[in-house]
Amino acid sequence: MDRKRRILGIDPGSRITGYGIIESDGIRSTHVASGCIRIAQEQFPERLGEIYRQLSELVATYQPAEMAIEQVFMAKNAASALKLGQARGAAICACVVAGLPVFEYAPRAIKQAVVGSGGADKDQVQHMIKHILRLDGPLTADQSDALAVAISHAHANSTLQLIGRSKQGGWR
Amino acid sequence: MDRKRRILGIDPGSRITGYGIIESDGIRSTHVASGCIRIAQEQFPERLGEIYRQLSELVATYQPAEMAIEQVFMAKNAASALKLGQARGAAICACVVAGLPVFEYAPRAIKQAVVGSGGADKDQVQHMIKHILRLDGPLTADQSDALAVAISHAHANSTLQLIGRSKQGGWR
Repeated sequence: MDRKRRILGIDPGSRITGYGIIESDGIRSTHVASGCIRIAQEQFPERLGEIYRQLSELVATYQPAEMAIEQVFMAKNAASALKLGQARGAAICACVVAGLPVFEYAPRAIKQAVVGSGGADKDQVQHMIKHILRLDGPLTADQSDALAVAISHAHANSTLQLIGRSKQGGWR
Repeated sequence: MDRKRRILGIDPGSRITGYGIIESDGIRSTHVASGCIRIAQEQFPERLGEIYRQLSELVATYQPAEMAIEQVFMAKNAASALKLGQARGAAICACVVAGLPVFEYAPRAIKQAVVGSGGADKDQVQHMIKHILRLDGPLTADQSDALAVAISHAHANSTLQLIGRSKQGGWR
């Protein structure tokens, strides 16, 4: 039985949405694709539509089995939380409508899974992602965050499979 | 030439999303349909998917030409702004993906358009909506808010047609 699964990690934002697709058996992960959806449209309804369309295309192209996204604990203020919420809503919709289960991970849990310490900084996370996925060259911050949450989900999945509770890996 | 247009007004929320569809020539408006999308799902990604799906169905059934939504100036706090933003993102996506232009109106502009005073209270707005659309019986608050923004857009459209700037009715 092939236990490898394709996982899509997303780091949504109203201007730039990072995405990272990995394939993982829970122990060893490989990079499939990653990048940023940059939204040129000026008007925000069009921006949301574009996030939805481009993510739907990515899902159709790469056929991930699951989606993982970082939990938002505290946005800077209500105005930025609203903007981020709208982008998140569009990104999550695209995945749910395509039938993907969605899993959410706290920022500390992501750092813990990738670096081994919940207090790790961005540079350490980026360094470890390159190491885990055997990547050369620069990663943008959005790309790196998206790959990090995908890796966290791959590891969480593996632990859950080991303890035989594969249905309780998230809050779907 | 038939100048009547179908307008979909939406009042999004993470648990209840109000909708109202009217037909208007900019002066006289009639009620086509209105109600609430109540989301039973416990998990929020599923809730967003459900808002998207149900609104897409409404758009397919009633074929409105335009969508109008209330502008959010100030949410209570960052956590509620994030929740509201996600629901708004799902609702707006469903309309943009279906090809509808989206128009946004400030709360005061909506009250001004419906009641004639930007400081009108909820009861006055509800009373005037029933009068304008010749409706009997109770309206829920979400339904009433959704119909109010649709009526605002109908009036704004009419004014813009009169002054020959029909392309500048919103911020699409």
